[in-house]
Amino acid sequence: MLSCQFDVRFYETDALQHVSNTVLVGWFETARLPIFRFFTPDLDLQNWPLILANYNVDFLEQIYLDPGVEVKTWISKIGNSSFEIYQELWQSNVKKAKGTTTLVRFDYQSKKAVRIDDTVRDLLKMHLIHEE
Amino acid sequence: MLSCQFDVRFYETDALQHVSNTVLVGWFETARLPIFRFFTPDLDLQNWPLILANYNVDFLEQIYLDPGVEVKTWISKIGNSSFEIYQELWQSNVKKAKGTTTLVRFDYQSKKAVRIDDTVRDLLKMHLIHEE
Amino acid sequence: MLSCQFDVRFYETDALQHVSNTVLVGWFETARLPIFRFFTPDLDLQNWPLILANYNVDFLEQIYLDPGVEVKTWISKIGNSSFEIYQELWQSNVKKAKGTTTLVRFDYQSKKAVRIDDTVRDLLKMHLIHEE
Amino acid sequence: MLSCQFDVRFYETDALQHVSNTVLVGWFETARLPIFRFFTPDLDLQNWPLILANYNVDFLEQIYLDPGVEVKTWISKIGNSSFEIYQELWQSNVKKAKGTTTLVRFDYQSKKAVRIDDTVRDLLKMHLIHEE
Repeated sequence: MLSCQFDVRFYETDALQHVSNTVLVGWFETARLPIFRFFTPDLDLQNWPLILANYNVDFLEQIYLDPGVEVKTWISKIGNSSFEIYQELWQSNVKKAKGTTTLVRFDYQSKKAVRIDDTVRDLLKMHLIHEE
Repeated sequence: MLSCQFDVRFYETDALQHVSNTVLVGWFETARLPIFRFFTPDLDLQNWPLILANYNVDFLEQIYLDPGVEVKTWISKIGNSSFEIYQELWQSNVKKAKGTTTLVRFDYQSKKAVRIDDTVRDLLKMHLIHEE
Repeated sequence: MLSCQFDVRFYETDALQHVSNTVLVGWFETARLPIFRFFTPDLDLQNWPLILANYNVDFLEQIYLDPGVEVKTWISKIGNSSFEIYQELWQSNVKKAKGTTTLVRFDYQSKKAVRIDDTVRDLLKMHLIHEE
Repeated sequence: MLSCQFDVRFYETDALQHVSNTVLVGWFETARLPIFRFFTPDLDLQNWPLILANYNVDFLEQIYLDPGVEVKTWISKIGNSSFEIYQELWQSNVKKAKGTTTLVRFDYQSKKAVRIDDTVRDLLKMHLIHEE
């Protein structure tokens, strides 16, 4: 499991005085940065290895400005060229949102999916979610 | 069907020189504004009638800075207190993303779901997606 | 003068139930898109011609979710390689913010400022603000 | 001096493969959160004490996705009801941007500026920038 903590930014709230739903996918992307580095340790933008195919987020409770939040990140599925990430958003010891994101190992030149190589596959497996 | 068109904003692109996936939920929210008005014609923030329970977006093709995009919006399901919206993102006559959002008629004071009243229900039905 | 109108997006509000100050620079950038096209008609990202050196925004009145807003854009100064844009944000016939942005004609390969060529200079002059 | 560090978020880059200029004012706002707490320790949204009157940012060098950045924050002027904050953005030991923000002690009910009280004034003075 990977953990990423951040303060809520004031501009991330909306007129309902809670965090805008639109913010979550940005937080989840930020919490995936260590996983991007499995594929490209130096975050090489000229050879970016991944593309996003789907995200799906459940909002369980309202998220507020204060206190800070934690995103927990696991790998939930590993396919041939795609894999799924499962993430939870916690605030004040309450699970407030959860979601999955499907990413595809992708070649931006040929615009084709590519098999995830074994070295990266082993890194992903280390963060596989366990049955609970 | 409701249609909403906008220019892509430069800051909505990312370092992969396409539109960031994080932008779509904001565009979809903006295209739902006429539906918010079914529930609160004057967008009264002190009595906001809706809360978001889930969104799920499929990314089919990369979206670019230019030309502008269109979001098409339909109602796809109507329940007792919740309903589902189905949206498509089009650019250059290509369907580039599609997604559903589940909204709940909500009382922010009591933090409880509320039945969708019949007047609003009839307005929602006018935008129900047809079998195609 | 160039005019650009848009609806306020719900996520652009913040917990003070007005538009977040952080949104203005994005709106102003969006309203400058026609000026970007003076330099690169097809918005060619591989040869982007401009870089931003400064922005300065005065907030005169609170901006709200509804009704929509208008950004008015003029050229206020033209130098050798840089020029200044003056913009106003109007809502409900009230000028709610105004700002200047300094852009520089820039070569991203050599990381050097470049003289604004005469053809573009003439286009910029057509939008010079007049004494009022 | 207050210091705030964060990773650059992928969605904060733009198609020029650097950080979008529009992001800076959000980072600067986030770095001001401890100053907001001088006025309202529990960040009480029902009695928010401040409004933003102006921001002015100079962009000195391009900011990139990696490595993380630091925002340094000082108080640069204290008036009767307003004060000015001076901030710098550092990445890889290079000062890449700097800016000032003018905030006003404000009563949102009466829409009037209010004198900064002495207790808060003393807290602000502790972060006054020194001649260098």
